[in-house]
Parts: sequence; structure tokens; C-alpha cells
Amino acid sequence: MDYQKIIDDLYLTYKNVDDKGKVASYIPELKKVSSNKFGINLFTLNNQSYGAGNYQEKLSIQSISKVFALTLALKKVGKKIWKRVGVEPSGDPFNSLVQLEFEKGIPRNPFINSGALVVCDVLISSLKNPKSEFLNFVRKLTNSKDIYFNEKVVASEKKHGFVNAAHVNLMKSFKNIKNEIDVVLDLYYYMCSIEMTCEELSKSFLIFANDGVLPYNKERIISLSVSKRINATMQLCGLYDEAGHFAFKVGLPGKSGVGGGIVAILPDLYCITTWSPKLNKKGNSYLGFKVLEEFTTITQSSIF
Amino acid sequence: MDYQKIIDDLYLTYKNVDDKGKVASYIPELKKVSSNKFGINLFTLNNQSYGAGNYQEKLSIQSISKVFALTLALKKVGKKIWKRVGVEPSGDPFNSLVQLEFEKGIPRNPFINSGALVVCDVLISSLKNPKSEFLNFVRKLTNSKDIYFNEKVVASEKKHGFVNAAHVNLMKSFKNIKNEIDVVLDLYYYMCSIEMTCEELSKSFLIFANDGVLPYNKERIISLSVSKRINATMQLCGLYDEAGHFAFKVGLPGKSGVGGGIVAILPDLYCITTWSPKLNKKGNSYLGFKVLEEFTTITQSSIF
Amino acid sequence: MDYQKIIDDLYLTYKNVDDKGKVASYIPELKKVSSNKFGINLFTLNNQSYGAGNYQEKLSIQSISKVFALTLALKKVGKKIWKRVGVEPSGDPFNSLVQLEFEKGIPRNPFINSGALVVCDVLISSLKNPKSEFLNFVRKLTNSKDIYFNEKVVASEKKHGFVNAAHVNLMKSFKNIKNEIDVVLDLYYYMCSIEMTCEELSKSFLIFANDGVLPYNKERIISLSVSKRINATMQLCGLYDEAGHFAFKVGLPGKSGVGGGIVAILPDLYCITTWSPKLNKKGNSYLGFKVLEEFTTITQSSIF
Amino acid sequence: MDYQKIIDDLYLTYKNVDDKGKVASYIPELKKVSSNKFGINLFTLNNQSYGAGNYQEKLSIQSISKVFALTLALKKVGKKIWKRVGVEPSGDPFNSLVQLEFEKGIPRNPFINSGALVVCDVLISSLKNPKSEFLNFVRKLTNSKDIYFNEKVVASEKKHGFVNAAHVNLMKSFKNIKNEIDVVLDLYYYMCSIEMTCEELSKSFLIFANDGVLPYNKERIISLSVSKRINATMQLCGLYDEAGHFAFKVGLPGKSGVGGGIVAILPDLYCITTWSPKLNKKGNSYLGFKVLEEFTTITQSSIF
Repeated sequence: MDYQKIIDDLYLTYKNVDDKGKVASYIPELKKVSSNKFGINLFTLNNQSYGAGNYQEKLSIQSISKVFALTLALKKVGKKIWKRVGVEPSGDPFNSLVQLEFEKGIPRNPFINSGALVVCDVLISSLKNPKSEFLNFVRKLTNSKDIYFNEKVVASEKKHGFVNAAHVNLMKSFKNIKNEIDVVLDLYYYMCSIEMTCEELSKSFLIFANDGVLPYNKERIISLSVSKRINATMQLCGLYDEAGHFAFKVGLPGKSGVGGGIVAILPDLYCITTWSPKLNKKGNSYLGFKVLEEFTTITQSSIF
Repeated sequence: MDYQKIIDDLYLTYKNVDDKGKVASYIPELKKVSSNKFGINLFTLNNQSYGAGNYQEKLSIQSISKVFALTLALKKVGKKIWKRVGVEPSGDPFNSLVQLEFEKGIPRNPFINSGALVVCDVLISSLKNPKSEFLNFVRKLTNSKDIYFNEKVVASEKKHGFVNAAHVNLMKSFKNIKNEIDVVLDLYYYMCSIEMTCEELSKSFLIFANDGVLPYNKERIISLSVSKRINATMQLCGLYDEAGHFAFKVGLPGKSGVGGGIVAILPDLYCITTWSPKLNKKGNSYLGFKVLEEFTTITQSSIF
Repeated sequence: MDYQKIIDDLYLTYKNVDDKGKVASYIPELKKVSSNKFGINLFTLNNQSYGAGNYQEKLSIQSISKVFALTLALKKVGKKIWKRVGVEPSGDPFNSLVQLEFEKGIPRNPFINSGALVVCDVLISSLKNPKSEFLNFVRKLTNSKDIYFNEKVVASEKKHGFVNAAHVNLMKSFKNIKNEIDVVLDLYYYMCSIEMTCEELSKSFLIFANDGVLPYNKERIISLSVSKRINATMQLCGLYDEAGHFAFKVGLPGKSGVGGGIVAILPDLYCITTWSPKLNKKGNSYLGFKVLEEFTTITQSSIF
Repeated sequence: MDYQKIIDDLYLTYKNVDDKGKVASYIPELKKVSSNKFGINLFTLNNQSYGAGNYQEKLSIQSISKVFALTLALKKVGKKIWKRVGVEPSGDPFNSLVQLEFEKGIPRNPFINSGALVVCDVLISSLKNPKSEFLNFVRKLTNSKDIYFNEKVVASEKKHGFVNAAHVNLMKSFKNIKNEIDVVLDLYYYMCSIEMTCEELSKSFLIFANDGVLPYNKERIISLSVSKRINATMQLCGLYDEAGHFAFKVGLPGKSGVGGGIVAILPDLYCITTWSPKLNKKGNSYLGFKVLEEFTTITQSSIF
């Protein structure tokens, strides 16, 4: 299949489509990014890269980092993490406190904010230098040293992160946070602030297309079973309360971030990443979602 | 792979496991079924059948019928049905009115009761003889005439179906039910009352493993795209608010019923059906879930 | 105090005020009433009547009937009714199913629809001819035979009463309704359809200003304690989720109906009734609320 | 009426009743108080005091302080405070985040924790030395200098106050908190930590029985209208989600605290305060509620 041509065509078609999304406004530093950025990259297990547009520019990965955090936590503490966070879709917006209160501080899954905060808490308890070890883990998955936190984004999020502070306090009241609240929020914001290109994101997710093994050096990072389970969790919970539509229309496991990135995985073959900062009402990239739907329709790709 | 041996082993192992489930009590007629029934059947696209235990005895398919109803409705009216029912997981127990009220009478998905009631309403508007046409559709998928409604189960459900009546009245108040309430409930209860064996259920679901084509006569029932989307909807919403755990642990699209049946699909290969009437707290067959988890672990089967 | 002058002044002032309310639309028969009707009546324990505008025309009392129903039920079965319905404000709109589901079929109080349906169920179980006995009870309280049901309103409500049907089915599923659903709804709609004038409403509520004794013949209808408790329940729950504002601004126990009537009570002195069909967003008469606020401000009346 | 005899009798009767309540456990410092403390005091507008038991020992007033805070805030900024907090009962437990999220950061009323936090925020914006001015205000109402904060209780609450931190962060995210989160929480905990005797509490609430005027020096603190509205708010919202039962059974406006105190007001006559640390399931003093119910039954006191 001529992936390059398909991606080029999609890029040209959607470049000029009326983008009905809106840039996330609650993190002021993110609003500074040009809303016209648009990139697509597909990276295959046999090391081919196909890209169009701004696919080699850095974007703020935001919630996509939650997949890295979960993966690292599963490596460190194994399945006992599932006592503190579930694997069910939330059925509610990504920042809802209702369910968290009703379910006594156990977040529905590791890809909503509260769930990722619990994962951060686990990492802090099990790593000596959580921030640098986390960054190194992402660099290793990507096979690149050129990946950094963005301190300005961290500062901006901390200044406006009252909802996350509400979540972590509520979970602490239920004793599902073990470390100091500020320490947990600090790691969380650092994780979210990581900047990567579409191409780097595609590469870093290849282990999930490869049953847990890094393609570039054959190192096993996680077991086959854990890899499949992370994919399942992405499929069910990766796009907030639009996960059902994503499964229905795109048909691949994936994860989005409010920076406008979406990564999707076709097991045994490739990862594909899109970037467009304007978000639909559910908080997912408006163009990115449409491009992925069109791409899987054209290529008849689906796990189902 | 020696499916027969695997299934025999699973049957023998789980036959004697302590079954912590409980038979559904809210449909008195269903309580009469022996709670010790236990059957497993796997049916492949190349027409091989592997079974153990009571896999050739009839069970009440209950909510598994919702997949047939959705399929028939999509055939009849196409995608406009999605204006009246969503494709997102509910995040709530299968009989919750909260979300339905909050979301103004639009059920989250076609596999919760309220969603299936809307699908029934669509079928009544588009079929001349809804009950007989529905039954014939199921017979056709199964390639068997020996499939019937159970009138006693219908009567039993009607007598105790106050929650479903509440749902359909609430949706009618939001104008998302077009036909008479009693007519809609009648079709719904007839659908649920259908009795099939594990083997018949496996066979009837093969179109979803075969991109929408009946394997036994090569007739296309639905398009490839619709077939994949029904699978996606099963994966996200097929086991009530345990769908996440089912994706996580079993890794296949599937649908359960309170009669104790679960059907799961591995695209391009087979369908597998289990039957054990005792249900876990989420309303899914306790043993069936465990058998399917073990089966996909042993055979390393997963769509992820 | 010159009540007649105060009421005349209020009538003239508010007659020409911009009425921002809207006539209830969900009962078509009620929409036929002229939206400009406007009446005020104050009736004292020493048998003086002060009125202005349409205070001697019949209005549909609707939910105001819930106070009569509770009173009659308390007379018939006493305090054991409180096992089946609470006395707490609902904190939610008058037709919410959420709380009812969460609290397992026990309505928050007897003045929300679900609570009144339980009260109807109690009356059906304890009266031989519920409808006629209920009507006679209201006639006795009012000291007038000229009070009737409106069959057209009953028919109109039944035709559109899907939300009430949802409530009563849900409660039946929790076994908090003992009689047939249609019988309970029938009595409920008949009760709501009663037509009375403002003056009749004021008179009929005088027992709550008179510690349970009918002023016109000194007959004790309910005990002092029950009378005070009904007042307390009206104060806390009588105006749906605007009860707090009514207590805050008007300062008297009262009950409203979607026909546009509001009755309020100053213990030991009088009842005052207003009628204006346009409702505010909370379902209470827009003008009526404002007139009562102004009246109690001018006369410095308040139970607090 | 021989108040002293009635109170003595009640004290002796309830002193030996089986107390089914439990001391609040979430503030460790409060658990140190002997759970057997039991005091009753009634203080009349004509300066008579009737007491029994530990009515002259200090108790932690906790949420009773919310009435003082509201009163001071209304003095300082007037009715514009009602744009930031409502006057409706919450219908939910006192620490629920659900409603706060649903209603976009506007607390239901000033007597739930979130509402009192908004009131604290208002006080911080309008007072130079919030803590000392607040304390002086309480001393003035009580006509006593012998009233202090308890720093140990403040420290204990801060250490475990994650739910309150969640609330204030959530409201800050909706921009309904203007000051720094730690500053708001600090004032809140200081307020709650005030210690007063039953007799002092009765005296300090006399302005609400006296239309806003201090009985001991005839100084008007708030207008008649504001005084009645604070009483109405206490009646509707003063006992968390047991306010309906309190109105129903006691029939007086009142306010409780988790320290085990309850103050109730009979306008134009007196205030009555009870203290018993063991709380019922709704968080109100188990014995106190019962004593007040019995007292108003015996004395036939009720505002209704």
C-alpha cells in the first residue's frame, strides 16, 4: 500500500477543510502554539516513516504521556496497580469528580486525569528520581535523546490546575494517594509537558504494535499480555468520553492529548500520529480524528 | 491448534470450580433453569465445531438478542439510527435511568436496555411483522429453523418489567419512542426470550467474524464497515459496565445475556460461546467470563 | 392592617409588570387558559375575604392537590406513611428520576410527583371510592360543594404523562407501589385536575393556619402536631427546588401548582392565594412569587 | 412555663438513654473530647438562662460558626453575596462535590462546607484582619471576651482537610474563589475551631430571635429582613440533609456542628443549645436532636 501517497492526499484534503475545533484555552501556554499546525506520520515496524506537514515539529504531548506513565508503572509494580485504578471507560468527561466521589477515590481508568494522578503517585513511590527516570524511559522508547520537558508549560498548568488539585485532594481523602499532593501534581505536570514530534510519538508507541518489544533493538519492555492489555485500555478509554466513537469510526486503539496529538496503533504493522491543535467538544483533535477515520477507511484497517 | 482438547480441558477444570455467581432472580421463569448448566462451543469460519458440556441445549439468549436487533435495524434503516442512540459505553449499570434522563432520552448505546428499546422501536416502524421477521432473521443467520420464542419467559418478564417500562416511558417523554409503549415492550421481551444452543449462537455470530458475509452461503448480510462497527460496539459496550475488564482480560468483542450466555468473536477465525447461568455482580456469567479469559490466554488470541 | 388596599395596590402594580414567565406547555389542555389571568385572595381565620382580579374564577390546582392528598392520607394511615416517603427537600427539579433511583424508590418528600404518587397509592389502599372520597374531602375543607374534577385535563395529562409513568414504574420495581400502575396514575391525574378559585384555595388551607381545626365549624381534621408538620413540609418542599428562595424571600409555608396557583399560610392569621399562569424557570408562577414576596415585605409577615 | 424543670427533666431522661451516635472521627483532635459530655441551655430575650449538665463547658462550635460568618459577610457586602452562593437545600450530604461541579462552582447554600468557604473568601476580601475581626464579632454577639480559637483543632483539621481542599480548588477553577486557596482554608479552619459554651452559643444567637438587634445593648447588627432571612436559611439548610426532619420534628430554625452542638431559635422568645458529641448518620448530634424534638413537643413550640 502506498502510505506516502495516502498521507499526502489526506494532508492536502484536510489542510483546507473548515476546522470546527477550538484550541484548548485552560492552559494559557498551549494557546500560544499556532492553531494551524497540522502534521501526520505513520511509522512501521519495519522502520519506514511516512509523513506530511508539521510532522517533525515538537508538540506538547499532554495526556498521551499517560500511556508512558502506565507502562512504566506496570513495569515497576505489576498488576497490583489495578487495585488503585480501574480499567472501565468513565462515561463522563475527563475531568469529572462525580464518579470519583461515588466510587470512593478509585478512578475509573488510568487515562483520565485522576487515574493518571494515581499512576504518578505509584511512580513516585517506586522511583528514586521520578522525573528524570520517566523522561529517560520515554527517550528509550523513542530511541532519541532529543526529548525534553517544557518548564513554561509546567508553570502554566500549575497556575491553573485547580481541577487536578481538587481530584488529587479528593483521592487523598480516600487514602488513594500516598505521597504529598504537591509532589504528585509536580510529576503529573512535568509528564504532560513533554514535547515530541509526530514521528517520535509514532516510534515511541511501536512497542504496543510489537507485543511489548522495542523494534530497534529487540529489547522486551513489557510482556505480550501487558502490551495487549494496554492496547485494550487505550481502545476503551483512550479518547475520554469519545472512545466509543473512535472505536466505531477509526477502529484502532489510540490516545489523544489536549495539545492536539492523537496516536493510534495497528498491531503487528504500524503506529500513526496526527497533530492539529484545534479540539472538538470532547477535547480531542477535530482534524486528527477525521484524518484517522478517513485513513482507516481508505486502507481498510481495523482491529475489529 | 487442538481446539477440542483445549475446550475439553477448560470444561473439566471449570466444571468443578467454586462458582461464586448467582442466577438472575428478577425473571422468575429464568430461575427455573438448572444453575449447573455449563457449555462451551467454538465454531470456525471453515465450519468446524468444537464443543463440551451442555453446548447443544437451548438457553435463553436474553441481551445477546440486542446484537441481532441492531444488525437488522442497520440493514433496514442504515446509519440514521445513530441519531437516536449513541455508541459510547455507559459507565453505569445496565438499567440506570440517570444517564438517560441527563442525556435527554438518547441512550448511550444499543446494548443497554434503553438503547435496545429504541432499536425495537425502529424495527416496529420499518417491519410489517416485526416478531416473525426478527425470528426469521435469527434463523437465517444461524441456518436453522429450530429456533423459537419462549412465551413463558415473555410473560414472566412482562410481569416484572417495571424498570424497562420506566425507561421506555422516559424516552417517550423525550419523543425518542415513536410507537406505542406496550408494542415496543412486547417486541423487546419476545426478542429476549429466544432460545438457542451455544453452537447455534456461535454460528449466528459468524458474520461478524466474516466481514458481514454468511459463511454457509456466502450471502452478504451487512457491509464490511458495518460488521466492523458492530464488533467495535460490542467491544466497547457488550458486557455492560464490565466491558473494560472483558477487553482487558479476554481481548475479543463479545456480548453477554442474563441467561448466562456469552458470545465472543475473533475476526477471520471463529466465534466462541459459553453458557453458565450463575452471574457475577456485573450481571455477566461468572464461569463464562473466566473460561473465555483462560481460553484467550492459552491460545494467545486477542484483537489487540 | 388594610389588607384590601394592600392587595388592590399589588394587583394594580403587578397587573402591568412585564411577566417573564411562560405557561406550562406539557399539559396541552392547560395551555388553553388565558395567560393573563391574575388573581389574589387573602382569607382570614375570622372569616374575612380580601380579593382582587380573577380571584373568584376557577383555576386548575394541579400540585396544590398534593397537600390535600397528604392530609387525607395522614388522617387515614397516620405516620406509617413516612416509611414510604421522606420529608427532605429534593434538591432537584420536580420530575427527576435520579434521586428516586439512587434512593431505591423512596421519594424525597410527598410534594414531588413521585412522592404524591406514593400518597395516591396509600389512598387507594385505604379508601373504598378514592376519587369521590378525595373530592368530598376537598369540598369539606373548603365548605363548598361547587368543586369538580376536569375530565379534559385528566385526559390531556394521561396522554402526555410519560414521565409520571416512568416514576411509578420505577417505584413499582422497588416495591414501593402496591396497586396497579394505571389505577395509581388515574387517581393522581384526577386529583391534579381539580378546579378551585383563589378564594376557595385560601379557605381550604385555613386548617393549616388553625392548628388542624376547620374554622367554619370547629371540627378538628388533624392534630396540632400533624398540622404543624404539614406546614414544615410545605416550607421545606412546597415549591420544588425553589423552596429555599421562597422561604428566604416570602417567609411563609406554601404550595404551588403548574396551573399558576400558589397558596401560602401565616399560622394563626390567614391564608393567601395568588394565580397567574405564566411560570418561572423553576415551574412556579412568576408573578405569584413576586406578589407574595412584596406582600410579606409590606406587611412584615414571616414565620421566621 | 417552668423551663428549668423541663430542661432538668430532659437532661435526666436523656442522660441515660442509649446513645446510638458516634463521635466524628475525621478530625482527630475532636475525638479527644469525652463523648459523654451533655449540656442543655435555654437563654431568653429577657435575659434568663436555664441550663443543665455541661452547659458551661467549652465545645468546638465547628459548623455553627457558618452562621456567624454569613452574618458578618452580609453586614460587610450585603446581598451581592447571593450571586456567589445559593439559598437552596443541597439534598446531598454536606461534603458532596457532585452538585458543586454540576452547578459550576456555585454552592447550594452558605451552610454547606463549600458555601462557607465562599463566605470566607468574601470576608478575606472585605476585612483587614479577617481572623481577629471575625473573633471579635463573635465576642460582641456573645457579650463575652472569653472566646478563643483552638490552634490544635486548626492544625488537626488542616492535616486531614483534603475534601475541603478539593472543594475550594474546584470552586477556584470556576473562578468563585478570589483569594489564595491556603488563605481561604486557613480562615475557614480558624472559624470552625472556636470554642464556646452552650450558654454562650444561646446568647450569641439571640439577635436572630430579636429581629437583628443585640438584646444586651439594643444595638442593631443586621436589619429585620436580613435576620429573618438568616433564620429561613437555617431552617432550610441548617442541618445538612436532615434539615427536613429537623423542621418536621423540631419546628425551629437551627444550626448544628460536628462538635456535637445544635442551636435553635424561637423568634421573639429564646435560643436553646444542646451539646452531645456523638453524631447520627447525618452528622448531627444524636441526643441533641432528640432533646430538641422532645422539648418543642412538651412546650408546643414551633414556628409553623
